[in-house]
Amino acid sequence: MALDLGGTNVRLALVREGHLLHTARLATQAQDGPAALLERLAAAVNDLAAWGRAEGSPPAGLGVASPGVIDRGRGVVRVSPNLPGWRDMPLAQELSQATSLAVALENDANLYALGEYLYGAGQGAGGMACLTLGTGVGGGLILEGRLVTGALGSGGEIGHTLVEPDGRACGCGALGCLEAYASATGLMGMLAEAQGRTSACQPGGGVEGLARAARAGDTLAAELFARAGVALGRAIANLVALTGLDLVVIGGGVAPAWPLMEPACRQEMAARLCIVDPGAVRVVPAQMGEQAPLLGAAAWARQRLAVD
Amino acid sequence: MALDLGGTNVRLALVREGHLLHTARLATQAQDGPAALLERLAAAVNDLAAWGRAEGSPPAGLGVASPGVIDRGRGVVRVSPNLPGWRDMPLAQELSQATSLAVALENDANLYALGEYLYGAGQGAGGMACLTLGTGVGGGLILEGRLVTGALGSGGEIGHTLVEPDGRACGCGALGCLEAYASATGLMGMLAEAQGRTSACQPGGGVEGLARAARAGDTLAAELFARAGVALGRAIANLVALTGLDLVVIGGGVAPAWPLMEPACRQEMAARLCIVDPGAVRVVPAQMGEQAPLLGAAAWARQRLAVD
Repeated sequence: MALDLGGTNVRLALVREGHLLHTARLATQAQDGPAALLERLAAAVNDLAAWGRAEGSPPAGLGVASPGVIDRGRGVVRVSPNLPGWRDMPLAQELSQATSLAVALENDANLYALGEYLYGAGQGAGGMACLTLGTGVGGGLILEGRLVTGALGSGGEIGHTLVEPDGRACGCGALGCLEAYASATGLMGMLAEAQGRTSACQPGGGVEGLARAARAGDTLAAELFARAGVALGRAIANLVALTGLDLVVIGGGVAPAWPLMEPACRQEMAARLCIVDPGAVRVVPAQMGEQAPLLGAAAWARQRLAVD
Repeated sequence: MALDLGGTNVRLALVREGHLLHTARLATQAQDGPAALLERLAAAVNDLAAWGRAEGSPPAGLGVASPGVIDRGRGVVRVSPNLPGWRDMPLAQELSQATSLAVALENDANLYALGEYLYGAGQGAGGMACLTLGTGVGGGLILEGRLVTGALGSGGEIGHTLVEPDGRACGCGALGCLEAYASATGLMGMLAEAQGRTSACQPGGGVEGLARAARAGDTLAAELFARAGVALGRAIANLVALTGLDLVVIGGGVAPAWPLMEPACRQEMAARLCIVDPGAVRVVPAQMGEQAPLLGAAAWARQRLAVD
């Protein structure tokens, strides 16, 4: 069984062999405080588990995809920018006590990557990184079939690698991270900074509006996506140099605008990657959409809890 | 048995359980051409193997540490800046035919890292990167006990990750790589570029002279090591974000000057690493020196060839 805890929505699914048998969804409403949210999460898990038991598919464990920095050993959400008030939250223990299920907790972008690797665009890859371009830039890294988390737990945080020293401020507190350019927040921030320039962009149109303007020939909008593309090219080139991987999967809400970023990304990769053939690195769209983190969470629970 | 093919010297060793039983050394003299060098390498290996057989320690396989980009599957040195004329050289096959030993070929910085991980500063680390600061900047990455090479073979090439967009030209052809700042070539290049400035540095004194000047209070020399330290801090912060590793080992000929780079490196790491505690990342000097690549090569041969 899988739970994807987003900043806006929570999604749950009963999963069997890479397929979602039954799903449920609720609004996160993090503003009501951690205790209220925990109670609603537990109720939703218990409801779906009861449905599964009635249908002859009782869940054996629960994989939880959470935003933020995770202490997976202790099952704790250390801090999460999208869940106000969550600091050192023992989410695995709380959910386990309230549902009687064994719980495996992991970062949502890591589980998105695992879902794409096992069932989507990453199937059969030797090494793969997955970038989820949304409000922020999530990342997951899979080498030789294993999710890279690392001793410090930060493995796969591609969104917080440097692409521009002394560059734009990132939500993490550092300057010049990939996330400050290739996320919705980054793109809209760059648009706001360029407000003196002539543009057809509607300020309230979000990234979709910006993408429409770019496709219609708006110079500024095209330039901002190109800046995001350059940032992605730098981060991907570093990834390839460090890990030798040959596949990058692009997902998340901003991914439909990937074709607007791809030429600049490819050009930057070609300029940066002199030690390997940049053409050997595939960069492809994600295939599983919202299902990816749920499928990844269910697989993670099986791996970590040795349950089905 | 192990062979470390350097641009200046070749070193060989009979290795048993992490100890060098007997060693040999010859000048590389790459300028005589690939055929002559191959012949001399094979003769040296055969000599040492004969000694081993006479002493009751016959070598079962040969691990070869080579600079440059390696195709380890085919045992080929694709290109090596330090070995002029070497392009797509089938080194493993040539040495195997001439010595009747099974040969496992790998990048020298990767084997240096493996040697430090197994027998030196990296023992027991959860995840480790090793940086060899010399003429260039070599790198090796070990995650969960395994050397990261990757589908494209470039794994661990930390020296060619970006630290300064549109920065100094690197030997690889790209701009702003770590190697352009934190290698002997990078440091001496920055000194040459600053030649109009007052300094006690002797142009012919190399990195050792530069380090002496910095220790004696020379402002320019101290500044150049600080620039190298900033570059290292950026590359290490990216490494930690991507892999979650908690140990970085600094080796190579420039490593004695590490204390001159460390404060700026630490400061940059603290500014960049907001998602994890920068204090949890240890950065320590290498312990095994020239033995590291030989010990790593012998271990690699055991792993890859399943011989002792």
